[in-house]
Amino acid sequence: MAVNDREFHLKELDPVLMKDWEIAEKAEDFLKPVKVLAMELGLTEDEIIPHGKYIAKVDFAGVLARLKDRPNGKYIDVTAITPTPLGEGKSTTTMGLVQGLGKLGKKVTGAIRQPSSGPTFNIKGSAAGGGLSQCLPLSPFSLGLTGDIDAVTNSHNLAMVALQARLQHEANNTDEFLSSRHLTRLDIDPSRVEMKWAMDFCAQSLREIIMGIGGKTDGYRMPSGFGISVSSEVMAILSVFTSLSDLRERMGKIIVAYRKNDEPVTTADLEVDGAMTALLLRAVNPNLLQTIEGQPVFVHAGPFANIAIGQSSIVADRLALKLADYHVTESGFGADIGFEKFWNIKCRLSGLKPDCAVIVVTARALKMHGGGPKVTPGAPLDPAYTTPNTKLVEKGCQNMLAHIQTVKTAGINPVVCINHFAADTHEEIDIIRRTAEQAEARVAVSHHWAKGGDGATELAEAVTDACNEPNNFHFLYPENMPLKKRIETIARKVYGANGVSYTPIAMEKLARIESMGDTQFMPTCMVKTHLSLSHDPALKGRPSGFTLPIRDILTYMGAGLVVPVAGDIKLMPGTSSDPNFKRIDVDTQTGKVKGLF
Amino acid sequence: MAVNDREFHLKELDPVLMKDWEIAEKAEDFLKPVKVLAMELGLTEDEIIPHGKYIAKVDFAGVLARLKDRPNGKYIDVTAITPTPLGEGKSTTTMGLVQGLGKLGKKVTGAIRQPSSGPTFNIKGSAAGGGLSQCLPLSPFSLGLTGDIDAVTNSHNLAMVALQARLQHEANNTDEFLSSRHLTRLDIDPSRVEMKWAMDFCAQSLREIIMGIGGKTDGYRMPSGFGISVSSEVMAILSVFTSLSDLRERMGKIIVAYRKNDEPVTTADLEVDGAMTALLLRAVNPNLLQTIEGQPVFVHAGPFANIAIGQSSIVADRLALKLADYHVTESGFGADIGFEKFWNIKCRLSGLKPDCAVIVVTARALKMHGGGPKVTPGAPLDPAYTTPNTKLVEKGCQNMLAHIQTVKTAGINPVVCINHFAADTHEEIDIIRRTAEQAEARVAVSHHWAKGGDGATELAEAVTDACNEPNNFHFLYPENMPLKKRIETIARKVYGANGVSYTPIAMEKLARIESMGDTQFMPTCMVKTHLSLSHDPALKGRPSGFTLPIRDILTYMGAGLVVPVAGDIKLMPGTSSDPNFKRIDVDTQTGKVKGLF
Repeated sequence: MAVNDREFHLKELDPVLMKDWEIAEKAEDFLKPVKVLAMELGLTEDEIIPHGKYIAKVDFAGVLARLKDRPNGKYIDVTAITPTPLGEGKSTTTMGLVQGLGKLGKKVTGAIRQPSSGPTFNIKGSAAGGGLSQCLPLSPFSLGLTGDIDAVTNSHNLAMVALQARLQHEANNTDEFLSSRHLTRLDIDPSRVEMKWAMDFCAQSLREIIMGIGGKTDGYRMPSGFGISVSSEVMAILSVFTSLSDLRERMGKIIVAYRKNDEPVTTADLEVDGAMTALLLRAVNPNLLQTIEGQPVFVHAGPFANIAIGQSSIVADRLALKLADYHVTESGFGADIGFEKFWNIKCRLSGLKPDCAVIVVTARALKMHGGGPKVTPGAPLDPAYTTPNTKLVEKGCQNMLAHIQTVKTAGINPVVCINHFAADTHEEIDIIRRTAEQAEARVAVSHHWAKGGDGATELAEAVTDACNEPNNFHFLYPENMPLKKRIETIARKVYGANGVSYTPIAMEKLARIESMGDTQFMPTCMVKTHLSLSHDPALKGRPSGFTLPIRDILTYMGAGLVVPVAGDIKLMPGTSSDPNFKRIDVDTQTGKVKGLF
Repeated sequence: MAVNDREFHLKELDPVLMKDWEIAEKAEDFLKPVKVLAMELGLTEDEIIPHGKYIAKVDFAGVLARLKDRPNGKYIDVTAITPTPLGEGKSTTTMGLVQGLGKLGKKVTGAIRQPSSGPTFNIKGSAAGGGLSQCLPLSPFSLGLTGDIDAVTNSHNLAMVALQARLQHEANNTDEFLSSRHLTRLDIDPSRVEMKWAMDFCAQSLREIIMGIGGKTDGYRMPSGFGISVSSEVMAILSVFTSLSDLRERMGKIIVAYRKNDEPVTTADLEVDGAMTALLLRAVNPNLLQTIEGQPVFVHAGPFANIAIGQSSIVADRLALKLADYHVTESGFGADIGFEKFWNIKCRLSGLKPDCAVIVVTARALKMHGGGPKVTPGAPLDPAYTTPNTKLVEKGCQNMLAHIQTVKTAGINPVVCINHFAADTHEEIDIIRRTAEQAEARVAVSHHWAKGGDGATELAEAVTDACNEPNNFHFLYPENMPLKKRIETIARKVYGANGVSYTPIAMEKLARIESMGDTQFMPTCMVKTHLSLSHDPALKGRPSGFTLPIRDILTYMGAGLVVPVAGDIKLMPGTSSDPNFKRIDVDTQTGKVKGLF
């Protein structure tokens, strides 16, 4: 298929008249075989592991060894202002920017996380981009891809199987019997089991359960529950590991419970860490897909950003930076959540330095921040959002300014991308542009949803300019800042809080962690709603004068993260009364899937 | 890699000194690339979907369309006598026979089911064969392969997500609200929810749970539980479906619960059947792997045989019979369980006719049937099993005779395969051979574990002889035999019972099914222990004079099966106190997995 043929056919796709999956279906007739994609990227045939004709896993360790002396390309993070619950097109912009850089003739790659089946089958969709800026092929992308999340789920649940079987066998048997089975009593405190089960759906009915009902061989009776797989510590590990031996080591350090004598019980104590690593093995290599215009996109790891680290994998970014001159990665939700973790956790662990950050802005979200009516997923949008209203936009710009400041605090150059919607007026766009420019951010209006790469050249030029300007990237806090001060620094400087409060349990854990030595130097992964700069999703705009309440502090020793939990966050979302699974189906003649987005 | 090179290197592998995974690891240095394997089999490049270098999925629909006029090859089923809990090497024999037929120069394929992670990480292992008769590559085979079982688990659990969300939303909301969400009240009777959740591990603590604990948005509070994924109706569907449209139709017929007005609630009523099909899509094509000697093996679907249909997929067998002159398939456990379902369910649904059945016999199992001490997995074997004892073998042969008779009742030619163990004596082997020959079965002693295909040529010759002899294959019961009589026929003619008893609930369901018209003509899938010809695992040999107790009758409308449950069978096995996960690990230098079997 010649490039011109593909370009010709792409011109026939109309995002106004066609649904995302309809565009994807047509565009997929003109995909590049993944072998061609890999060859163009400079990969050898031995370095790719094909999964069908259009997707391959890439042997990251082999490529990094081969190209260890090559300098890295420019590193661009895409983040956003505080979104509406509908999302403001961050993945779409990531794809659009990759396509726009492609139009400028740059050698470019993208990296995004794999979508969770929770949102895919519920309301939000799989976030493969949209319109003429998409990651393809859509169906495998949205339906489990090469099985990485399943591997995470299985690896996680095997630890629970080991823990629960151990509780049962210790309760039912003497020390002598246990010793005949090569076991030493761990004496686990059932009231201090830290781990729950994992499932990658919005299964609210499994949020809290009592398990082990029945006789003495039917498990140990105790409360438990399920978190969505993308909130699992194993997923966080997949996101931050840097080599197979690093992965193996992390898999043994997960704390599943505490003993009655207060010592932690780890996955290594359960002798399940080797098998967990074996189950995760098929997930360690990044997946290579492509944009609708044929640029390479790595899809790897997929932790939620509000309840987890929210970054695609370090290994995917490292790989891409060796292969491309410009690499665009995405960090989940707004800059307070996704970018803050990209900046202070992912870059610290990877040793990579970003060259610029793109902040995606929509007039719709600014109107919400300016006082517009509540936006409810699944319900029709209030007319306030589809008719001109410069007042709401102007007022809402305060939220954007907070995120611009966050990026500047990191010492890198922000580029505000106004993700253009059909209903936006010139006056609204001008207000946003002026406000951002006054805050010393570059600004580009982008039409990538409607026009693909051709609509994103202004953005791509702003980004290359920003990348080629010197910057002063530095972390928000040094490694040795005490945990309490670290939490306060994030709360004040990024969220705009005027203080932090702790529940008694959080205070107790804080004291314990600060007494543990090494642990206090682990990066801090905040858990907070993405729907507000504060902990309260109802507070829009740029809230001030609030105290950030820390309800609990979790310790993920395997991922190497201390996780302060701000406010009431559920690790298992709920399925709506009008979920998207009702609209997904298979055409049995063609085998193609309808209704995904 | 020339054939001679491979043969030379295989000769260096010693099953006495090496563990199965060590043999696999060495042998995998000489695997055929799956493209070569596919080409030798007569597949075109468009018909295979590679998953790495050594595994591919095969587009069964495309191949069947292309080769629709080609006659089928010979169709051989491998079954066994009633096994010890350790298994008697049925998969090993399947691989050995494929290799033996290869040595005779036949164009041959094999088909086995995909292993469940339950046994793989617990005691029994993944049953990829053993010694010099194995299915390779071992690690992906044992660790989820191309994700088919995960697809089953996810598809199954999405139905539960839909059901539980519906129960919650109906409980919390008015008819008006439901109607605004495009829902009509189903009025599900929570005491008559038929479906539970699925997980592919031995997670006894999830066997019975209370879910929905918490507030009104935390699900509907009710008892539930998890079955192992391989017992899921979705897995049964994957095993019996014949085309994508057949699959789509079946996915909407699964009964998840009953309404208060007694009508069934199906997956179609929940509007989740299209999405379930979409999730299952990546599992519909059979996986192509190879024996240690390079013959093609299809691995597809994996329902347990004691609690489910226990057959690899119909589509894999159909595909293989168009490609090979001899196709060897395996049916789970003894002939009373696996072969009976192969015969009366799988062949009825596929329209395929078998040419012969191999019954795997070991002196070890016959000794147990003759009165030897209890065999406990994980515990050392009693010396009775490793020292000569012709008396126990002779007495135990009664069990073998029952299985020979079962195969003869089907009208096909039995071949008894004595799977040779190092401790077996000439006298013991002679007794087995004589007894089987007196029952008019062909007999072969097979050394495929120790010698690979070279050790299985006697078996392969007996099988080709049996295939080329006329047979009179016919079903045990006609489609229109009433259900009660059908259960009695299986119980008397296959199990040797002298009658059947029913609990009140089973009687009630029997009456309901017999009044339903069509349903009574669905094939009957018995659920029974595999450790005895009877329902009681303690009754060894050839029990007689017992009454088969039917505890319950399940209706799997999607799979199209009526499932009488004999005795007390758990849909979720338990993890032992010394499970195999403790011995599985990853070599971080090579990325290879150790400790699988």
